[in-house]
This record gives sequence, structure tokens and C-alpha cells, in this order.
Amino acid sequence: MKDDCIFCKIVEGEVPSYKVYEDEKVVAFLDAEPVSKGHTLVIPKKHVDDIHDAERMEYMWKPLVNVSNAVKEAFDAEGVNIAQNNGSKAGQEVFHLHFHITPIYEGNELDITYNRSDLENGEEVAEDISENL
Amino acid sequence: MKDDCIFCKIVEGEVPSYKVYEDEKVVAFLDAEPVSKGHTLVIPKKHVDDIHDAERMEYMWKPLVNVSNAVKEAFDAEGVNIAQNNGSKAGQEVFHLHFHITPIYEGNELDITYNRSDLENGEEVAEDISENL
Repeated sequence: MKDDCIFCKIVEGEVPSYKVYEDEKVVAFLDAEPVSKGHTLVIPKKHVDDIHDAERMEYMWKPLVNVSNAVKEAFDAEGVNIAQNNGSKAGQEVFHLHFHITPIYEGNELDITYNRSDLENGEEVAEDISENL
Repeated sequence: MKDDCIFCKIVEGEVPSYKVYEDEKVVAFLDAEPVSKGHTLVIPKKHVDDIHDAERMEYMWKPLVNVSNAVKEAFDAEGVNIAQNNGSKAGQEVFHLHFHITPIYEGNELDITYNRSDLENGEEVAEDISENL
């Protein structure tokens, strides 16, 4: 547990939340400022800041899938977005790894503008990445 | 393999791509229309449409983390977004499960407007979800 981390406090029950799922290693609870009805966060109980320290947390996978299914079914959503942000520039606000599970409804799509462009120097870019794997 | 699926064709090598990672069950390759330099997709080789049929694909986890790390390190990115969309209303365009790994750079943040509101009827909403788990 990290002392100044609000999600660690939610895990410990020191800060209240509406939990939808809990097992030995994972908790899922409602986002306090939902983008849509059913917007849920899935987090590991163990504190890590972000995805970069999470290599050994495969146990996150099944809760992620199961909560995504339950959120969709509970409210008959049209779709589901999963989003996970790392770094303040990437929109991360709480520095305890968390996945947003956001149900999408007719007329309530996320307002995302992707500024896409054609891939350039693909071979070089791919090499730069694979060299770091 | 699903005959009309472009990602299945990428897995099989029938459609060219810039692969950055491959193992027995997972492939990662550059998005052909990147949002930013290093924008990579991570997919299972086995065809499933979306996250809802992926309960047994825990093997996706490590490649997701490792590719996220490599993308950040390769280009010294400020942050990394992971996004996974399910359903056309949620922005899914290719119906083969895929995760977007998008590096974020200074001055090149994603343009996302989250219309957040305060949580209402939390107890009831949480119950509706947990009943479907």
C-alpha cells in the first residue's frame, strides 16, 4: 500500500467506493465521475504506478474481460471501450494502474478525435520498437 | 482464421505489415494509419471479434506490457495510451480483437473530451453489474 494513493485507500476500505467485483488480487469499482452509466475501474490491489511495472499481473486479464461483459449485459450497452492511460500527458490522473471500462450507448459515444496519418518509415519504426523488446 | 478478416490475413502474412513482435499466439504490428509515431496494434492470432470472447486469452497480457514498454523506450515518449474498442458505436473498425498502444508526445496528446458527471445511484448501478458477474 502506498500511503498517499486514493486507490490503495479504496482497496483497504479507507475510502468508500461502490465495488462490483473483488478477488484476492483485483478490485473493480464504479468511477466516481462516470463518463456513462456503468463506467467501472479495474485495478490490482498491489500498488504499481502504471502498465510499465505490471509485467507479472496476468491475473488482471480475466477480471477485465468479465467486468467488460457484465457492464455490457447489465445495461444492454451498444459497445464497450477499455482505456488505460500511462503518464499525465496521456491523461492519467491517479497513479495507480487502472483500466477504464466504459459502456457506450446510442447517442452517447465518446468524443475522440484521432488525428491519423499514413504510416511513414514503417520498417525503421518497427525496428526501433522490436530492438527494445 | 476468418476469411474476410484483414487482421487474420496479416497474421498469415497474406497482407503485409510491419511486425514488431510475434510469438506462438500473439502478433504486434504497426498501425497503418498511426495517431503518433510508434502506434502499434497487439492482437491474438486466433480470431475473436472482441474482448467479450477473450476470457481465456491471458497470454495477451505480457505482450501488451512489453510492447507498451518498448514503444515508450524506443521513442522516449511522455506517456502511453492503451485502448481497446468493442462494437462499431465504440469506434471498433476491424472486428478482430486488437489493442491500440499509442505513444504520447509533448504537444501531441490525444484529443479526447470526457463528458464526466457525478456518480448517481451508485449502489444500484454496482448491483446491476455484479449480478452479471
